[in-house]
Amino acid sequence: MIIDCHGHVSAPAELWAYKASILSHRGAHGRGKVMVTDDEIRRACNKVEMAPVGHLDMLKKNRIDMQLISPRPFQMMHSAKPARVVHWFTEETNNIIHRQTQLYDGFFFGVCGLPQVAGAPIEEALPELTRCVTELGFKGCILNPDPFENSGTEAPALGDRYWYPLYEKLCELDVPAHIHATGSHSERTPYTVHFINEETIAVYGLVNSDVFKDFPSLKIVCSHGGGAVPYQVGRFQSSSMRKPGGQRFIDGMKKLYYDTVLYSEGGLKLLIDLVGPERCLFGAECPGVGSAVNPVTGTTFDDIAPIIESFDWLTAAQKKMIFEDNARALFKLA
Amino acid sequence: MIIDCHGHVSAPAELWAYKASILSHRGAHGRGKVMVTDDEIRRACNKVEMAPVGHLDMLKKNRIDMQLISPRPFQMMHSAKPARVVHWFTEETNNIIHRQTQLYDGFFFGVCGLPQVAGAPIEEALPELTRCVTELGFKGCILNPDPFENSGTEAPALGDRYWYPLYEKLCELDVPAHIHATGSHSERTPYTVHFINEETIAVYGLVNSDVFKDFPSLKIVCSHGGGAVPYQVGRFQSSSMRKPGGQRFIDGMKKLYYDTVLYSEGGLKLLIDLVGPERCLFGAECPGVGSAVNPVTGTTFDDIAPIIESFDWLTAAQKKMIFEDNARALFKLA
Repeated sequence: MIIDCHGHVSAPAELWAYKASILSHRGAHGRGKVMVTDDEIRRACNKVEMAPVGHLDMLKKNRIDMQLISPRPFQMMHSAKPARVVHWFTEETNNIIHRQTQLYDGFFFGVCGLPQVAGAPIEEALPELTRCVTELGFKGCILNPDPFENSGTEAPALGDRYWYPLYEKLCELDVPAHIHATGSHSERTPYTVHFINEETIAVYGLVNSDVFKDFPSLKIVCSHGGGAVPYQVGRFQSSSMRKPGGQRFIDGMKKLYYDTVLYSEGGLKLLIDLVGPERCLFGAECPGVGSAVNPVTGTTFDDIAPIIESFDWLTAAQKKMIFEDNARALFKLA
Repeated sequence: MIIDCHGHVSAPAELWAYKASILSHRGAHGRGKVMVTDDEIRRACNKVEMAPVGHLDMLKKNRIDMQLISPRPFQMMHSAKPARVVHWFTEETNNIIHRQTQLYDGFFFGVCGLPQVAGAPIEEALPELTRCVTELGFKGCILNPDPFENSGTEAPALGDRYWYPLYEKLCELDVPAHIHATGSHSERTPYTVHFINEETIAVYGLVNSDVFKDFPSLKIVCSHGGGAVPYQVGRFQSSSMRKPGGQRFIDGMKKLYYDTVLYSEGGLKLLIDLVGPERCLFGAECPGVGSAVNPVTGTTFDDIAPIIESFDWLTAAQKKMIFEDNARALFKLA
């Protein structure tokens, strides 16, 4: 049994058409609605989008039995104005995800987007989180540490009290937040690089904060194996030694969870070895950036289950933790 | 023989006093000069600064036989105004480094700072580069990809023609540039995290550019093992597969050099294994962020030579490349 905790929705083109429309009229024509049939949603799951085969085919090829799906992060437009278009688009995206989880019940599970509006209080995103979890059965949410989308203004660090109402709500609902940045306005830092840098900032900020002291039951998953942090852990661990009696960096890191969306054996080994299988959730983000064929292996880069299976320094139980148990427990999957 | 290619100057307090002064009067009181004796420079090399022992003691403890020293990056203030104070401070810093290389001839070698002024043409930094290399015997320079120092405005990517006059001059002088960011104005991204993120942006930008096509003899060293890139290589490699006939990401990475300023066995193994010993230069940045004692090993984090020596998958010749040969060839050390 393999659960991919890091999937993104393959939505019908109508969703992106809706986005294009509300961005253009800035909401002046009213909220509107994405009108699609169930068949169109089904077809989107099999449409050639980022890979030579459809979403469901790719999952089958990679032997994935269940997938948590969230919005496509680079589409989330948290820095768009006015705020209402961010809310509308997030809600419509979550609705599509919800319908997909109903059409493929027991196979897809929802992780909702939050209508995080750059510069707005985080409280304004909470009603949608509550709706998704309590009414639509979503299992968690995406948390974007940079709603300004790399446009030159900075959000508060994740240890800042700005985020506390969200953490409180996550604990109350008992669902995890999966850290994942969205778009990037920077020319030199396209979103694929921005994601990684934001994860590095996020892990660093959370470890060097009181967040887990103040919210001991908070569950945070970090995307793409924690950005740069596991590779660069020595410098942060060394710095933490300078504070006598303080928390050691690696101990703080082990309060977070990490997905395995790394497409190399070296990266996967480093992550699992460092934080332990208890803190790793299988993630392939399939289909996505890793869906190109690796000529060395003949399979796609995101086909990482065989790599983890081949690690003879992990027990069968530890592999099962990574593939299934940790995601089941954290996201409370049936 | 061990050469640390990534060291920073331990300067007398008078240098920082000079910085404080010109920053305060914004150059209105004139250029001035750092007045220190040779003895004061010698004492600074043995002063307790970032570690329980002095600079020279730390190097001795770590068995380092030669060190390339550059300005302390977080002090470089490229975003300060007016431009003249950036130029003055850079020149004074380079002068101190030069004197240190003379006092410890054959032991310290200079890597100069460039007076990169945020928003100014890169051409304005070239006279100081030329002075340092041709008059003072410097072996290379630091290249800061973000002279705005994370203040919300962005510099052009390293593949942009903005940087071409510098690359041309580096080729003409036949010296390498060592990529290293400087300060960070961001609250949530302190300089130690900013360095890593900038290296990720730099490697990504250089690999996805024409720089090495246009300057085949250009020599670029990337600090701290290339930021996040070696750990995240799978995603970038996969993306590069989507461009039929294009350069593969890993092949582009191998046009750069990387220092080993990573303070963990996992990180070092991943880097050397990925890019090959031909592309790695020993760097410990000693003394620096890694100079705290690791209670697990009983030695400081920056004492990484024993880790590399212990890698039984490297031949003696490959280890010598990393410890000595690559730095000698690249920086043309006597």
